[in-house]
Amino acid sequence: MSNSNHISTAPGAALNGLNSVIPFSSRLRTGRALEVDVWSIFNALNLPSDCINLGQGYMNFPPPEWVKDGVRVAISNVTTNHYSHPKGTPRLRRALSTHYSSTFGRTLNPETEIIVSSGANEGEYATFVAFLEEGDEVIMFEPFFDQYLPSITFNNGVPVYVPLHPPSPDMVRATSNDWTIDFDELHRAITPRTKMIIVNTPHNPIGKVFTRTELERIAELARRHNLLVLADEVYDCIVFDQKEHVRIATLPGMWERTITVGSAGKSFACTGWRVGWLIGPQDLITPALAANTRIVFCSNTPMQEAAATGFENAKEKGFFEQQLKEYQERRDVFCSYLDKLGWQYSFPDGTYFVLVDVSKIKIPNDYSFPSSMDGRGKDFRYAWFIAQEIGVSSIPVSEFYCAEHMRIGERFARFAFCKDLETLHKAGQRLQKLKDYC
Amino acid sequence: MSNSNHISTAPGAALNGLNSVIPFSSRLRTGRALEVDVWSIFNALNLPSDCINLGQGYMNFPPPEWVKDGVRVAISNVTTNHYSHPKGTPRLRRALSTHYSSTFGRTLNPETEIIVSSGANEGEYATFVAFLEEGDEVIMFEPFFDQYLPSITFNNGVPVYVPLHPPSPDMVRATSNDWTIDFDELHRAITPRTKMIIVNTPHNPIGKVFTRTELERIAELARRHNLLVLADEVYDCIVFDQKEHVRIATLPGMWERTITVGSAGKSFACTGWRVGWLIGPQDLITPALAANTRIVFCSNTPMQEAAATGFENAKEKGFFEQQLKEYQERRDVFCSYLDKLGWQYSFPDGTYFVLVDVSKIKIPNDYSFPSSMDGRGKDFRYAWFIAQEIGVSSIPVSEFYCAEHMRIGERFARFAFCKDLETLHKAGQRLQKLKDYC
Repeated sequence: MSNSNHISTAPGAALNGLNSVIPFSSRLRTGRALEVDVWSIFNALNLPSDCINLGQGYMNFPPPEWVKDGVRVAISNVTTNHYSHPKGTPRLRRALSTHYSSTFGRTLNPETEIIVSSGANEGEYATFVAFLEEGDEVIMFEPFFDQYLPSITFNNGVPVYVPLHPPSPDMVRATSNDWTIDFDELHRAITPRTKMIIVNTPHNPIGKVFTRTELERIAELARRHNLLVLADEVYDCIVFDQKEHVRIATLPGMWERTITVGSAGKSFACTGWRVGWLIGPQDLITPALAANTRIVFCSNTPMQEAAATGFENAKEKGFFEQQLKEYQERRDVFCSYLDKLGWQYSFPDGTYFVLVDVSKIKIPNDYSFPSSMDGRGKDFRYAWFIAQEIGVSSIPVSEFYCAEHMRIGERFARFAFCKDLETLHKAGQRLQKLKDYC
Repeated sequence: MSNSNHISTAPGAALNGLNSVIPFSSRLRTGRALEVDVWSIFNALNLPSDCINLGQGYMNFPPPEWVKDGVRVAISNVTTNHYSHPKGTPRLRRALSTHYSSTFGRTLNPETEIIVSSGANEGEYATFVAFLEEGDEVIMFEPFFDQYLPSITFNNGVPVYVPLHPPSPDMVRATSNDWTIDFDELHRAITPRTKMIIVNTPHNPIGKVFTRTELERIAELARRHNLLVLADEVYDCIVFDQKEHVRIATLPGMWERTITVGSAGKSFACTGWRVGWLIGPQDLITPALAANTRIVFCSNTPMQEAAATGFENAKEKGFFEQQLKEYQERRDVFCSYLDKLGWQYSFPDGTYFVLVDVSKIKIPNDYSFPSSMDGRGKDFRYAWFIAQEIGVSSIPVSEFYCAEHMRIGERFARFAFCKDLETLHKAGQRLQKLKDYC
């Protein structure tokens, strides 16, 4: 299997060179869709062949055999090879209801309050299709998952950025929770055109699990200004150290204004299966379903059935507890090497990402960089240097800020630790060599 | 497996009753997205429990075992359970290039001229995202695949309808090719705002395979008015009696303005796998990829690998020849019963659909219909009556016309014969009872 199977793309960049007889839509000129994206710059083809890939967030281990058995059973039947209901297979929606109802503090109706999407990404795109009106503003915290931006602008929305503020560079033992919201700033970002706010917790790339207090304050603003909340909780099964993962949908007055997003890929280590879901009140799920139905009609049936197998059996198998333990061990192993290195990093409360302050690196003056680094944050050069010289790839974080706020992120690189322990040990050992470049 | 897994939905209808604190986008009020759709009215839950379902176009047989083996192999590896490239897996793109290059009369570059989508439907949606500007007009022939309409309007396009004209009611032996284009009408439909024309051949629901002459005349207009052609050829492997399936992309000057759509679901009897593809010049595929990447990021990897398995081995196994023979037998068996019934039908040159003129039915004056029939074409009542009284479901065809042209379609019901022979014999026998209602 070639590595190139996992390289992200820069379709946008290529658009600039097009000389088509048929002009493409001006919406492709929005949301940075024309720019070379970070995934393309830091793809394996551009990096040393033996580089350890901690850039992209996919596992180098498979989903559990007993979840895969769900695929094998599904394809052995007739109907489960064919169209499923646009809402998702009844079995998966029932399994999701059983799995999620307790943490939502209510019995989720699988007919009206849950739909399956073709990956969480498409579920989010469908939400923007369903709710955005020309000029509607969508608030997102920086650093943000980069897909949000064009998904908003392609649907006539206007992104509004509110940065999470990083720990001070001299903080000795920083955690993901030292990234903070300036609530005055958030408040000022709200206008009469604000329609939606995206709350991603546990947060990619920070690993921050929003506290109850933070979510209560966000909720208060959402209620007061009648905002729709897109709660991107795709990492909800990766919250460490018994920290509390609060679903904003469960706060008073929030159920009726929140769509919560989940992901089979994150839940069962199968990012290529493209099964996600939206959970919310019928009044919000119905428009999202209307959009989802037109975009993809329905999602792939065998993988939905396998995800159902996963949720149906997870409890008895203690699966999520075991998986969490494994991710926690991966985090601890990788972070132990960061401790040895002695650089600041934000010890993550959730997800499989850790942000490292890479700004201590002294890059030789005559070091040569590709032109794709021009005009980018310093973190692009740090991450490039680390990948080239040390052989560990990461993702520079300034990419996930608007131009105005880019400087806030350019101390940091994101390392993904959803890899087996051997890989993490090897990467951690390589990172020690950075001491030579301080 | 409950039948309800296969019922289509009417999310739109439910929207009318919503009383949400958050208003949904006005785009959901376009493209009939709020109306109860035909699939919901004719879904199994509304029909007699022993009704034979010839309404929806999915098979009651599975994909071939050796194609399913492709899934089994893919899930047994690590990387093929994870994200694939947004373009699609390299292996599937290579297999598509090998399979399609000869019929396109050119070597298709798998890096720049082919992308995989999450079903043909999503590939088409991505094309509208990529090319439509506010107010751009898109011409489609009626009857049209109903998903086109909201996919166009959701992306700010304006649908323009050109009917295919049915055979005269007294034509004794009509074929799908007796549905004809009035080229003056087509010409008149073109305005300075026309951006795109959709050409669906083989055609759903007619079963018409557009002739070379027809396509040449469409192509001439497309060139003259600089139109993008969306060539929906998802039934390209189901063309009967050695009829010529002409790809409009292969006509002079057409490659550079045509995106051709294909489908694994139709090719390998796996409609629930959600793997489709777009083929065209780099100048058109690049924008479509930019859209596809934002909508779904990537498509499900194991099913892509299985589709690759299908194309890699199809030739040696004589698969498409054998499958076509089987569909042709299904068509011939089902049509033999229509011959016995003596009603006009359009003997199809392609696809697995046949249109039957059901207007001879004399429905008792006091027959009671659900309110969902109100304001619909007469064909809704015919199809409802047949399903209730005879136990064979079909889809009324007036649904696939604009309001102005609805009358053209209301003689017809669409029967899907992508079913095993036993089912088709049983359905054909039941249909004979319609003689009692003439």
